Amino acid sequence: MASIRSLLPRGSNRLLTRQPPAQCLAAQRRTYATPNLQAPDASDPKLKAIDVSQLHITKTTTPKALTPHNELVFGRTFTDHMLSLEWTAGEGWLAPRITPYQNLSLDPATCVLHYAFEAFEGMKAYKDKSGQVRLFRPDKNMARLNRSSARIALPTFDGAKFIELLKEFCRVEERFIPSARGYSLYIRPNIIGTQRTLGVGPPGSALLYVIASPVGPYYPTGFKAISLEATTYAVRAWPGGVGASKLGANYAPCVVPQMQAAQRGFHQNLWLFEDVDPATGEKEDFVTEVGTMNLFACMVDKATGQKELVTAPLDGTILEGVVRDSILALARERLVPEGWKVSERRFTMREVAAAAAEGRLLEVFGSGTAAVVAPVRSIGWKGELIGCGLPEDREVGEVTKRMKDWIEGIQYGEEEHEWSVKV
Amino acid sequence: MASIRSLLPRGSNRLLTRQPPAQCLAAQRRTYATPNLQAPDASDPKLKAIDVSQLHITKTTTPKALTPHNELVFGRTFTDHMLSLEWTAGEGWLAPRITPYQNLSLDPATCVLHYAFEAFEGMKAYKDKSGQVRLFRPDKNMARLNRSSARIALPTFDGAKFIELLKEFCRVEERFIPSARGYSLYIRPNIIGTQRTLGVGPPGSALLYVIASPVGPYYPTGFKAISLEATTYAVRAWPGGVGASKLGANYAPCVVPQMQAAQRGFHQNLWLFEDVDPATGEKEDFVTEVGTMNLFACMVDKATGQKELVTAPLDGTILEGVVRDSILALARERLVPEGWKVSERRFTMREVAAAAAEGRLLEVFGSGTAAVVAPVRSIGWKGELIGCGLPEDREVGEVTKRMKDWIEGIQYGEEEHEWSVKV
Repeated sequence: MASIRSLLPRGSNRLLTRQPPAQCLAAQRRTYATPNLQAPDASDPKLKAIDVSQLHITKTTTPKALTPHNELVFGRTFTDHMLSLEWTAGEGWLAPRITPYQNLSLDPATCVLHYAFEAFEGMKAYKDKSGQVRLFRPDKNMARLNRSSARIALPTFDGAKFIELLKEFCRVEERFIPSARGYSLYIRPNIIGTQRTLGVGPPGSALLYVIASPVGPYYPTGFKAISLEATTYAVRAWPGGVGASKLGANYAPCVVPQMQAAQRGFHQNLWLFEDVDPATGEKEDFVTEVGTMNLFACMVDKATGQKELVTAPLDGTILEGVVRDSILALARERLVPEGWKVSERRFTMREVAAAAAEGRLLEVFGSGTAAVVAPVRSIGWKGELIGCGLPEDREVGEVTKRMKDWIEGIQYGEEEHEWSVKV
Repeated sequence: MASIRSLLPRGSNRLLTRQPPAQCLAAQRRTYATPNLQAPDASDPKLKAIDVSQLHITKTTTPKALTPHNELVFGRTFTDHMLSLEWTAGEGWLAPRITPYQNLSLDPATCVLHYAFEAFEGMKAYKDKSGQVRLFRPDKNMARLNRSSARIALPTFDGAKFIELLKEFCRVEERFIPSARGYSLYIRPNIIGTQRTLGVGPPGSALLYVIASPVGPYYPTGFKAISLEATTYAVRAWPGGVGASKLGANYAPCVVPQMQAAQRGFHQNLWLFEDVDPATGEKEDFVTEVGTMNLFACMVDKATGQKELVTAPLDGTILEGVVRDSILALARERLVPEGWKVSERRFTMREVAAAAAEGRLLEVFGSGTAAVVAPVRSIGWKGELIGCGLPEDREVGEVTKRMKDWIEGIQYGEEEHEWSVKV
């Protein structure tokens, strides 16, 4: 078992500098304050905020050769530089640095390696036809990273300031941003706890850094619809858990179910949440998300005949995807006038299976930064294979394709939109 | 969103070397195999096993000064050396090395830093009166580390071989093992995924390493009973989750609730699991574990008057503590003949509160490697403070004290027992 520092009778308080002094025992209290799930000093105003003017840039003396477009693999080759900001509980955010891409030198006791003090983001920089570099809704990534970081007692930061630094980083790495449609620079902000002790407690220091990898289109020769295995033996997230946060902790436990699905011939696994359906009083498999994407279904309402685009609600068990949010907004703006209903609501595998059996399941797709959308051909569930409405000779449904075109149109600046932020 | 490598239409398979080739779609299958939650090649017999004879030792040329006993802080100062074993998906376990304690040089894309590919153990080496160094039930730690590692697609290993290496490491670090009762060398085996790519999948390489920190007794001047706040707004683990595994992923999300409890004057938080009690059909708060320890309660049965030692069962949501297991075994051997009942069963906060109100709650304690046992004075639950049976002027209950004496007696070789393994 790991130690509990607050149990230590002697010397231990020197470690736990961020814990408030023990107050009166709660015997006197009869109600608890509504919890605010972040460390008390995560955004302490007495500490230094990010200071963009302090940015120091050290350019590499050995620039890398660009990887040919047809050899780009997601997250495998990286640009020349990285952006780093150190934080300490005593000082706050230290001066930002852009340096040559380089290894981190970490004490083997560093808390990120033992207790998963790590939260990340995935975002992309695009180059439009005029050569202008653009980010897609970076404010959403910054807000989520702050929420994720605070949830595990890591510090928060000023997202607008960090976007300024990201822009500068993109300018430095501009030659790595491919200009062809579908190509982009995948940007990975990551924050890790760097305290070098084994006590389990709030890290007294952290490192927020950014690396970037040029990536090609998911579908250079057109869409490939995927098959999913609904996982009934493992559960990704739970009410009161951390499934809504983009924490490293949510990823490693998901890989074995993904491999199990692959062994049975599926491309990905689909995460369910078994719960009692208040409407029937029976246990049902609620659909949550797929692999590392959110999931959407297009179904025809049995009673009304209305088309519905449905995805699971943000109830704390679902990752708050930026593309998910964008799809919902575009659907409300552009599909609702065509007669569609757009729903964030719980829905069950039984409902999906019934819609499929009755020809009411039009299409299903995943959404995420990497692929934008991923069409789904079939879902394996309790030994049955549910067809998701895609004809044998097609790889993508109409709504899925339109969503991809709309979002990419905005990302590549073909449609001017407030979501696309010029660097 | 992170990428799904198996979605990538091109080049991606080069990364996913550990994934079996796509087989027939599962359309033909109507039943799924019972899942074995580890990576398919976690213990591939074609790969190299740990070879103790290959151990290479490089001694430090700058030995550290020993920290005075009264300045020892858990997990803060470390010994001169570390033990390391690299693993690759292509070769298996490479030659073990004992080297000077040194920083790890990690690419900023290394998967442990992004997706929490990390699992660890906590164990101790003790020096008995004759100077003999001893480990306590190391086979249990090895079995658990293998289970934890496999659960996140990291490799497994031969525990007996690794214990041989641990013994050699203890011999090298023998001068750091304090000889006084209550002092010991805390040993931290840790396994991390070291693949340097951002694709979410089974790591193609890993590092298993061991560091060690001399530690003092939790209670050099006697026990201090702690107070717990039962956490009703966050959940540590759930059925189908990874709460039974000693993963980094289980720790970072627990720190903010621990800090919140501290802000309200409690030493630690107590994790609950809300579920329907089949006996009553009502939702109840089931007691699971405390902070980083398992929890035991001693209660008098209302109907029979029999004394019962109770702890939550290993249902997948509870960490399988080595001290927990030892307490249960000793209780069955030594308390049952005195008339006690020993139970691994679900129990609720309502049951604990009722026992307290009726004078039937004798004592409560946590158990773990760091403290062995930690007596509990009170539990805050939904605004009430439940006294745990300890008189104002006492810091430890009778069973808690006996358990500590029994287990420490075995750990320090005062009682010869198969659990104590000589180095």
